[in-house]
Amino acid sequence: MRLSRYFLPILKENPAEAQVMSHRLMLRAGMIRQTSAGIYAWMPLGLRVLKKVEQIVREEQNRAGAIEVLMPTIQSADIWRESGRYDDYGKEMLRFEDRNEREMLFGPTNEEMITDIFRNTVRSYRDLPKNLYHIQWKFRDEMRPRFGLMRGREFLMKDAYSFDLDFDGARKSYNAMYLAYLRTFARLGVVAIPVRADSGAIGGDLSHEFHILASTGESDIFYDVAIEGIELAKLATGGSNFGETVEKLQSLYAMETEKHDPATCPIPAENLRHAKGIEVGHIFYFGTKYSKAMGAKVTGPDGSDVHVEMGSYGIGVSRVVAALIEANHDENGIIWPESVAPFKVALLNLRGDDADCVAACDGLYEQLENAGVEVLYDDTNERPGGKFAVADLIGVPWQLMVGPRGLKNGVVELKHRRSGQKEELSAEAALAKIIG
Amino acid sequence: MRLSRYFLPILKENPAEAQVMSHRLMLRAGMIRQTSAGIYAWMPLGLRVLKKVEQIVREEQNRAGAIEVLMPTIQSADIWRESGRYDDYGKEMLRFEDRNEREMLFGPTNEEMITDIFRNTVRSYRDLPKNLYHIQWKFRDEMRPRFGLMRGREFLMKDAYSFDLDFDGARKSYNAMYLAYLRTFARLGVVAIPVRADSGAIGGDLSHEFHILASTGESDIFYDVAIEGIELAKLATGGSNFGETVEKLQSLYAMETEKHDPATCPIPAENLRHAKGIEVGHIFYFGTKYSKAMGAKVTGPDGSDVHVEMGSYGIGVSRVVAALIEANHDENGIIWPESVAPFKVALLNLRGDDADCVAACDGLYEQLENAGVEVLYDDTNERPGGKFAVADLIGVPWQLMVGPRGLKNGVVELKHRRSGQKEELSAEAALAKIIG
Repeated sequence: MRLSRYFLPILKENPAEAQVMSHRLMLRAGMIRQTSAGIYAWMPLGLRVLKKVEQIVREEQNRAGAIEVLMPTIQSADIWRESGRYDDYGKEMLRFEDRNEREMLFGPTNEEMITDIFRNTVRSYRDLPKNLYHIQWKFRDEMRPRFGLMRGREFLMKDAYSFDLDFDGARKSYNAMYLAYLRTFARLGVVAIPVRADSGAIGGDLSHEFHILASTGESDIFYDVAIEGIELAKLATGGSNFGETVEKLQSLYAMETEKHDPATCPIPAENLRHAKGIEVGHIFYFGTKYSKAMGAKVTGPDGSDVHVEMGSYGIGVSRVVAALIEANHDENGIIWPESVAPFKVALLNLRGDDADCVAACDGLYEQLENAGVEVLYDDTNERPGGKFAVADLIGVPWQLMVGPRGLKNGVVELKHRRSGQKEELSAEAALAKIIG
Repeated sequence: MRLSRYFLPILKENPAEAQVMSHRLMLRAGMIRQTSAGIYAWMPLGLRVLKKVEQIVREEQNRAGAIEVLMPTIQSADIWRESGRYDDYGKEMLRFEDRNEREMLFGPTNEEMITDIFRNTVRSYRDLPKNLYHIQWKFRDEMRPRFGLMRGREFLMKDAYSFDLDFDGARKSYNAMYLAYLRTFARLGVVAIPVRADSGAIGGDLSHEFHILASTGESDIFYDVAIEGIELAKLATGGSNFGETVEKLQSLYAMETEKHDPATCPIPAENLRHAKGIEVGHIFYFGTKYSKAMGAKVTGPDGSDVHVEMGSYGIGVSRVVAALIEANHDENGIIWPESVAPFKVALLNLRGDDADCVAACDGLYEQLENAGVEVLYDDTNERPGGKFAVADLIGVPWQLMVGPRGLKNGVVELKHRRSGQKEELSAEAALAKIIG
């Protein structure tokens, strides 16, 4: 993409309204624009990251056997009355009447709707297990929306819902999601700590929150350092040792500070880490809460009706984008993990009015595009200093800089954004390094 | 995908509420489920088609130089007051107050919001032309929602907005979208007739509606048969003869029946066709209507402020899915164009309890998946007749059938859904034909 044809509304100044780093950097880097309190439009650069996060989440849901559907944003109040949550939900639920005076709402979550779909379509235990998910915009009418995407009102969420015949099945479905979440965050290039959440009476220990480590996080966690060492390769799904793998992982210590007691903590102090985190996911087994309230039953093996066992599994997709920035930035801007970077490389022509530089850059641009590399080509006439600053701000992994002096010596400059390392090398060598 | 693990809520009976074919077939084939009047949840099979249509629309927008953003569904009433449309819009606009008693609405379209974003971000004529589009759910509160996705309330739309310095630029932007639309529909495997729409005083002839030909369509059109012969290859974008190409295309006769006059029709009767169509797209130049009302200006080359010239370009993405079915079905079900088929092939094991059939099918399934072919593998124990009926109903292009008798003779059966042609051939030959 040529910058001259792109739409990258960079802000030169720090926006006064942005209190947290991700909000500030997303506004400055031209990723989002606020359209109302707590509601944002995604500019092209931000949308690219959002779509990449969404796609990784999707792939790991699919790998775990969940099946994608898409439920609408607008729901009828009726199903919420059936579950008993319509009156409970409070002012965070955006409610209204349609032109025929039917009570409707903008969905903050979808337990009721998916249970309604399930009861109308599934009849037999033979059709179980099922895990249906969607990735859809939700609305929660926060009293004081703030911190940009961290506590916005309209937000993108992946929510999955599992249906099983019995508790053993439900536990398997839960564990598959647990593993899928660890895989998802590993692919997003961050450490996410699965913290056991108190889910009250139902389901005992089958509730975990996932917190991305970031020094600016709101949550405060003690955890076993071994969690940091969990590698994607070890999180293979399925296989005979699936249950074992998950139980081993779930036994690793992780606790919110308010529940952490040094006196009873089961692991040695040298293995314990204390850090801040941002909650981006929650998985939750809730048994027959909705299936009983709404009559979601299947015929069991013995011919009798059974209320299905359910769980729900959420990831705040748009919130993850902000959390990734909180976990990956420096004083100059964002530092994207490779897997979600909006572009892999920024190609900077340091002299937009020099014919040799233009020819060299055009050639490199073509080669990168032909190799399938996502490249943002700064072909404008801005000063080099401005181009460096923008490239650092938007945080793509590589910066490939072409200037007249280097060209005379047959070299270009390649900078790695995360390490800050720069080197002069031939164009061929630089391309080989970027294409990888 | 194994059908035993999939979620395909087929209906055996014709749903009484469905009056039009696409609605009936989408419900029967388990593509959608109604959740409220005019509001639908997309089941896995339907979502696959929706995403393919969306992706083709996206690729052709990108090819034409439009840049993707994503605006939120919820908008502030304020910007609609600025444009003067808040009071005009009527009851089709879903309006409500948030918890802080601010007037909000669920966006039925986005001229106001994109103009607001533009005026806050773009300053100079040097940043023009720009064409920003998004693919987002919209809501229009129809008094009597009906015909399934044809006249639903929550629907997916691609809407693009162009910004130019002057009319010549605006015409170029318009023509680029005109060409992109023809390419889009050609790739979707349908004939779409661009009918000149009366856009009133502004812009003269710069308004076209695109109608997909279907005998069940609501619109009634006379058009030059040459339009049916427009091939994708001839719709190359850019190039020196771009303007010429578009003008030639736009000169082909196409008129809604109410405006068609045989006495003055400029083409010979033998070149004239009369058909029904479904409107799925509309492109529209409206000049400075919103830029003047909302103060969207750039600094021109001479330093003075210029209100930008705008156009908008919509495609009803979810409506296209229904229109494709209206244009592609027979008495047994849907017949998908290859480019949007939810799967390329249905692999039918005709004897789910036969070990040889299972082994043969498992092998074919693996080979198809490894070749990157999207395959729905009916591995259930249903009777063959039921499997044939479902495969015909969901309308994937190929059906690969494996039974014990054929296996003994070293053959499988391959059926082409559109032509109905069946042949017995070796598994290798069948794979070669499907993989293509």
